Order: sequence, then structure tokens, then C-alpha cells
Amino acid sequence: MEKVNLEEKFKMFHDHWHPRIVGELNGQLVKLAKLKGEFIWHSHKDEDEMFMIIKGKLKIEFRDKMVELSENELFIVPRGVEHKPIAEEEVHVMLFEPASTKHTGEEEHELTQNQQERI
Amino acid sequence: MEKVNLEEKFKMFHDHWHPRIVGELNGQLVKLAKLKGEFIWHSHKDEDEMFMIIKGKLKIEFRDKMVELSENELFIVPRGVEHKPIAEEEVHVMLFEPASTKHTGEEEHELTQNQQERI
Repeated sequence: MEKVNLEEKFKMFHDHWHPRIVGELNGQLVKLAKLKGEFIWHSHKDEDEMFMIIKGKLKIEFRDKMVELSENELFIVPRGVEHKPIAEEEVHVMLFEPASTKHTGEEEHELTQNQQERI
Repeated sequence: MEKVNLEEKFKMFHDHWHPRIVGELNGQLVKLAKLKGEFIWHSHKDEDEMFMIIKGKLKIEFRDKMVELSENELFIVPRGVEHKPIAEEEVHVMLFEPASTKHTGEEEHELTQNQQERI
């Protein structure tokens, strides 16, 4: 039962596309990540995933549209939907997803993080 | 698949202690609420509950301690733990909890909201 200060947590890591766990509830994980550049196309077969923008702007490309998110905006990507996050400048995001979620879905890529690191 | 802008959603209601649903994922609800004054002591038997402060300051009283949360801080109240939120000034919070969560747990009170309203 400790509070989580997002700004303090974001100071604890600097690499991109490497989410850190900051909380767990009801089998769901709360993660923070810094994103910069283009990620890969992927989907999560059985897991919906929420992106909430803490700082910066994030584009999420879908096969049929592009969504642009700013600070204090959130977006839920439904399970099975292919998406590709794009951060032209560094973005700080909070993610909510089930503990079972694989970073890049069924794709294996050099960007894939299989470790679940808690800070 | 629509983005949610928290500021716009908070403009859509003005009453206190009456959470509105703004998203759903993996059986969990994302809710927004405006809080002001003291809530009642309650707990949720089977549900962990997350408070994230979007604007203002929130105190959460526990039987053995008091936690004070500011903007961009979050706190997870584990299932079964009695708590009492206190907002000296108006606070805007985002809540994350299972769809099964009852507003005031097993307590029935005039503040209890049994309706689940989506905005």
C-alpha cells in the first residue's frame, strides 16, 4: 500500500519501448513506458490494452485509420486489433493490460521485452 | 475505438461522488469522478480499486494511516481494506476497477450510486 508518483517513476528509467510495472490489481498490470520512434505492427489475441498519455503526443496507426493522442487522453485498443504506435518525439505513457499480455503479441522482434520488470 | 479526452469528459458532469464510466477493458471499468467532502467508510470484498488523481488533492483514510495523493499520483486499495476518501477541495479522479465493483461495497448509504452511467 504505497502511492505511486508517476514523475518519480519516469525518472528511474530512460530506455524506449521497455515498459516497467508500477502496480497490479485484479490480475491487471499498470505499466509506464517511454516511447520514441516507430514500434512494430502487432496485436494481442486475448487482451484489450489501454494507453493513457502522460506527456507528449502518440500516434497509433491501425489498418484503417490513424489516431493521435495528447496528454490526458486515453485509448483502448481492443483484443485482436493490429496496431502500431508511433512517437515522433518522446512520449510518456501509462498502460493497463492483463498480466498475461505479451509485449508484441505473437510477433518476436528485437524490440520485444519478455522480462516483466517492476519499479 | 474512440479516444477519450479526460478534460472534455469532466466537463459533462458536475455532481460529486457519482462516477461515470468512460471505458471498459478486460472486464474492468475506467471511471471518472469528481469528489468533494468526506465519503463513507467502506471496502470491496473481492475487488482491488485504483485511484489516479487528475486534478486536486485526495486524502484516503485507512484504519491505520492516512495517505495524501496529488496530481499524477496513483494508489491501489487492495480488496477487503476499509478506506474513506476525503476531498477538502474538489478533486478529479480516474478509477480503475472490475465491472463487479459496488460503489460503497456492502454498505448502503444515501451516497451509494447503483447506476452505472456511461459518458
